[in-house]
Amino acid sequence: MERVLSGMRPTGKLHLGHLLGALKNWQQLQNEYECFYMVADWHALTTGYADTTAFKQNIMDMVVDWLSAGISPEKCTIFQQSHVKEHAELYLLLSIITPISWLERNPTYKEQIIQLANVDLSTHGFLGYPVLQAADILLYRATVVPIGVDQAPHIELTREIARRFNHFYGNIFPEPQEKLAQVPKLPGIDGRKMSKSYENCIYLADTMDIVAKKIQNMFTDPTRIHVSDPGHPEGCVVYAFHQAFNPQDEKIVKTECLEAKRGCRACKSNLADILKLIMAEIHERQIEFRSSPKIIEQILEQGNKRASKIASCTMNEIMKAVFGAGRE
Amino acid sequence: MERVLSGMRPTGKLHLGHLLGALKNWQQLQNEYECFYMVADWHALTTGYADTTAFKQNIMDMVVDWLSAGISPEKCTIFQQSHVKEHAELYLLLSIITPISWLERNPTYKEQIIQLANVDLSTHGFLGYPVLQAADILLYRATVVPIGVDQAPHIELTREIARRFNHFYGNIFPEPQEKLAQVPKLPGIDGRKMSKSYENCIYLADTMDIVAKKIQNMFTDPTRIHVSDPGHPEGCVVYAFHQAFNPQDEKIVKTECLEAKRGCRACKSNLADILKLIMAEIHERQIEFRSSPKIIEQILEQGNKRASKIASCTMNEIMKAVFGAGRE
Repeated sequence: MERVLSGMRPTGKLHLGHLLGALKNWQQLQNEYECFYMVADWHALTTGYADTTAFKQNIMDMVVDWLSAGISPEKCTIFQQSHVKEHAELYLLLSIITPISWLERNPTYKEQIIQLANVDLSTHGFLGYPVLQAADILLYRATVVPIGVDQAPHIELTREIARRFNHFYGNIFPEPQEKLAQVPKLPGIDGRKMSKSYENCIYLADTMDIVAKKIQNMFTDPTRIHVSDPGHPEGCVVYAFHQAFNPQDEKIVKTECLEAKRGCRACKSNLADILKLIMAEIHERQIEFRSSPKIIEQILEQGNKRASKIASCTMNEIMKAVFGAGRE
Repeated sequence: MERVLSGMRPTGKLHLGHLLGALKNWQQLQNEYECFYMVADWHALTTGYADTTAFKQNIMDMVVDWLSAGISPEKCTIFQQSHVKEHAELYLLLSIITPISWLERNPTYKEQIIQLANVDLSTHGFLGYPVLQAADILLYRATVVPIGVDQAPHIELTREIARRFNHFYGNIFPEPQEKLAQVPKLPGIDGRKMSKSYENCIYLADTMDIVAKKIQNMFTDPTRIHVSDPGHPEGCVVYAFHQAFNPQDEKIVKTECLEAKRGCRACKSNLADILKLIMAEIHERQIEFRSSPKIIEQILEQGNKRASKIASCTMNEIMKAVFGAGRE
């Protein structure tokens, strides 16, 4: 069975954008592949090293959300990057063979430095971010990596690094392929990209009251003054949510809006009902997992062990190939 | 007892320059401090990643030479960097908090890129070389680091990195101090710096016949044609060796040369006798250790275990300070 590696930086509780963009995909993949889902805490540190007070809680919250969204430790391996020492070892090794020029031409490098202007990102570790990603993937010899379009250059770089390694030390790593997620980006309630920093998210942990209020505040068609005016679904946040979470009725919603047969209030109330159904199950699991943090710890411990076993096995092979001698 | 960390890159068998510049010092330090002597194989990889075929043998040869020169596993910990996983972990962590500008202004960085022109050193790992050195030292909370003058900027950088870490995460690391070796550099037999690449070394493994021949070929005072001409000890390789290995008679050698009371041939034969005494003991041990590679393996295994115990303990504390949670 082919192996999948994917991860998320634990930056806090998850929102519907994560559910749609990653978790639904992960949930499906865990039935078809041998999946490794990683709490990317080292990665979170590269952009958040200056203040780590929330790290522990963020990790807990994120894993609760993963499990609540249907990621199952019976079907996949959920683990914490910093608890598998070989990630750092392979980072060091790949760091040694990776030309700086490959990293400097990484399009997200300078972009992020500008975007996250409040953090000093001109560090050696942030420059090496894609090297760590390559280590994450190659350590498990994952061949399938689910990503968004903007991450494609990173997987390309992982392949380049794998080829360079194989050229020096023999054929150790398969070249991973990206699996592009087919989902459009979910807007936040204000129409911009859904993002914590914009305060426009619907969180998986939001109660239905809060969700209903956020839906009420969603931006709709600003040119539609009266219910009898025909609407313009494209650009309407509510319609985007119907597309995402109500695909079977999406066409009806569109037609009714265009023909002024459906008012915005009714359309929102319809959306609230749909999200209620989807989120009820998630909320139920959240309550369960939040009340027993021990279970989360156990799941991570088990996952760390499983991941470590594979990682130390690969690393031993790597050491043999590079140094001519294994360990232990 | 204060802790010492020092290491050598395993680039092959050692010569008298190593004996004088480092090993004699190490031998003394092991009686006064808790010493950790490291086979710096990760460091050797940063400059030698393109061809690692000789690595295993180089490590063996170097450790045999250490032991033969009197470094004792009863008195210190001899270990292999790549076998203590925490070196890579702390490298990653310190890499994340170290500004690139600190590394680019490292004087040895561009110097080495020019010197080792046959290797492509514009890699992420070579830029991070001083970060790995900082990790090596801080992992053991070593406070004393014996070095040559040219390495002083590296220890300064280690202190800067330690301060930055302590500023973010609390007072974890002591600031290490350099202990400058008081020995002048030993010239090679041709008068240039003794270096493998110049083929001007006297190796610890050279038989006394070879040593005698090399001494015969040593550059002396080119202006002294006849034994009756007064000599010029300064600049004479044989005299430099007397200074290094025959300090109690150094003044006599100098005076006799200046006063033309000692010919170069006699002076060389005198030196050969002195080196014979020093090297006889080393050769005896070399024969012993070379005939039982298992013992070398055991010494390294034991050292790796001892080093790992301390390293994983420190790393656990570090993880608690950084992530708010330890491991295991």
